[in-house]
Amino acid sequence: MPLCIHTITTKPWSLEETMEHYPKAGVEGISVWTDALEGRDAGVAGRQLREAGLDIVSLVRGGFFPAATPTGRQKAIDDNLRLLDQAAELGAPLIVLVCGAVPGQPLPVSRQQIADGIEAILPTAEKLGVRLGIEPLHPMYADDRSAITSLAQANDICQLLNSPNLGATLDVYHLWWDPDLEREITRCGNNGHIFSFHVCDWKTPTTDLLNDRGLMGEGCIDIQGIRSQVQAAGFDGFTEVEIFSNHYWAMDQEVFLKKIVDAYHRHT
Amino acid sequence: MPLCIHTITTKPWSLEETMEHYPKAGVEGISVWTDALEGRDAGVAGRQLREAGLDIVSLVRGGFFPAATPTGRQKAIDDNLRLLDQAAELGAPLIVLVCGAVPGQPLPVSRQQIADGIEAILPTAEKLGVRLGIEPLHPMYADDRSAITSLAQANDICQLLNSPNLGATLDVYHLWWDPDLEREITRCGNNGHIFSFHVCDWKTPTTDLLNDRGLMGEGCIDIQGIRSQVQAAGFDGFTEVEIFSNHYWAMDQEVFLKKIVDAYHRHT
Repeated sequence: MPLCIHTITTKPWSLEETMEHYPKAGVEGISVWTDALEGRDAGVAGRQLREAGLDIVSLVRGGFFPAATPTGRQKAIDDNLRLLDQAAELGAPLIVLVCGAVPGQPLPVSRQQIADGIEAILPTAEKLGVRLGIEPLHPMYADDRSAITSLAQANDICQLLNSPNLGATLDVYHLWWDPDLEREITRCGNNGHIFSFHVCDWKTPTTDLLNDRGLMGEGCIDIQGIRSQVQAAGFDGFTEVEIFSNHYWAMDQEVFLKKIVDAYHRHT
Repeated sequence: MPLCIHTITTKPWSLEETMEHYPKAGVEGISVWTDALEGRDAGVAGRQLREAGLDIVSLVRGGFFPAATPTGRQKAIDDNLRLLDQAAELGAPLIVLVCGAVPGQPLPVSRQQIADGIEAILPTAEKLGVRLGIEPLHPMYADDRSAITSLAQANDICQLLNSPNLGATLDVYHLWWDPDLEREITRCGNNGHIFSFHVCDWKTPTTDLLNDRGLMGEGCIDIQGIRSQVQAAGFDGFTEVEIFSNHYWAMDQEVFLKKIVDAYHRHT
């Protein structure tokens, strides 16, 4: 499975710097975070990335559908429709969905609002030929980032809405602890719903809920085991390195990129 | 359900200070952390607590059974046997088990080692009349604190080992996100396995994985909803306030105690 890196992984770099350094290091794909496109024409950026030899794997991230009011939920749908246009201009075949949650709102209510929101944007996604990947997040983000905390819940929504443009994004950081993971990976793959695969590692200790993710091999996740299951379930796309880390962002990014490539070869 | 406080909640206080302040504030129960007993005779401490008008609800915490080597696992069993003696001397009817995990060891292996460890100490627990409460922890502690991350897993071990002295400790902080929670509370109660009930709250944002827990009402957990389910499942013991918080530990503990009692009345 070829290597892709998320722009946020090397956050200190501009999009130009990623285009310069990623291909030289043997990186074949890039997942573009929306902040990297700020103030840019997405169509131009997409062309530049492809000319630099990079496959655009996904645009990250849409979602955040739940809201306390109908107005808030409609705004979320509108934002996601605009993002679909941006993905089409960029030439990204996939938008990763961090689905959202509202602190204090029951999680089943948020999950219903997520399903409703996705249903509302699916026709546009189908028309534009852009896929949507529901990314379950770790339960430690269930308060305000995602009411979808397991692959089972993502699979349920995919089956409910039943569209070739709706699937799941699997991130080992969010899923590794789940006792039902292998079963749900198989289910996801059997339905053709594995759209992308993210890796990093869970460090012991983890000192920050958001920005202390580890490089592959630094933590306790059986990344190769999960990767094998994902592959056995029929997925042969990119292995995407998505690391939020104050530690690594503070490092010389060329040195960090070498470490990523090395860890990708040794631990994924 | 009467109010109990864990000594760690008011960590700056000595055991004498808890004996002085808790009963005056209307607190009827105390769960004693082992560090509060350091350098003390557990029998004497237990008598003093009871004379101060406090019910000793539990001794916290045993467990940590998994280890990479048989020697390490035997040491954990020996530690837990000593803790059982200490609980009996203290007069604590229950030991809360934080079951443990070894970073990088597959979670099913750790869960088997946990079941084996509990099985090894159960005869002593039965002989001493001390109960053991398996406390599932939030999946963000699955790396090194607990391979038991759901009430379903705790229930499974309780049913497997089938002893009147083995049950579960339910903590809303660890369990609130679980889509199967209500079903598993009912299952736990039907089997007579709800041994204790802990509360605090999940703040948004949570800035520390360990020591940023909220006072009830400060966060997103539906504590009253879960408490109702626990009660409907037949549990009528103490509501135990267990808060790890750098913020609250830095506060005047008498002021904090007033806040706890107020939050207990309004939000549990």
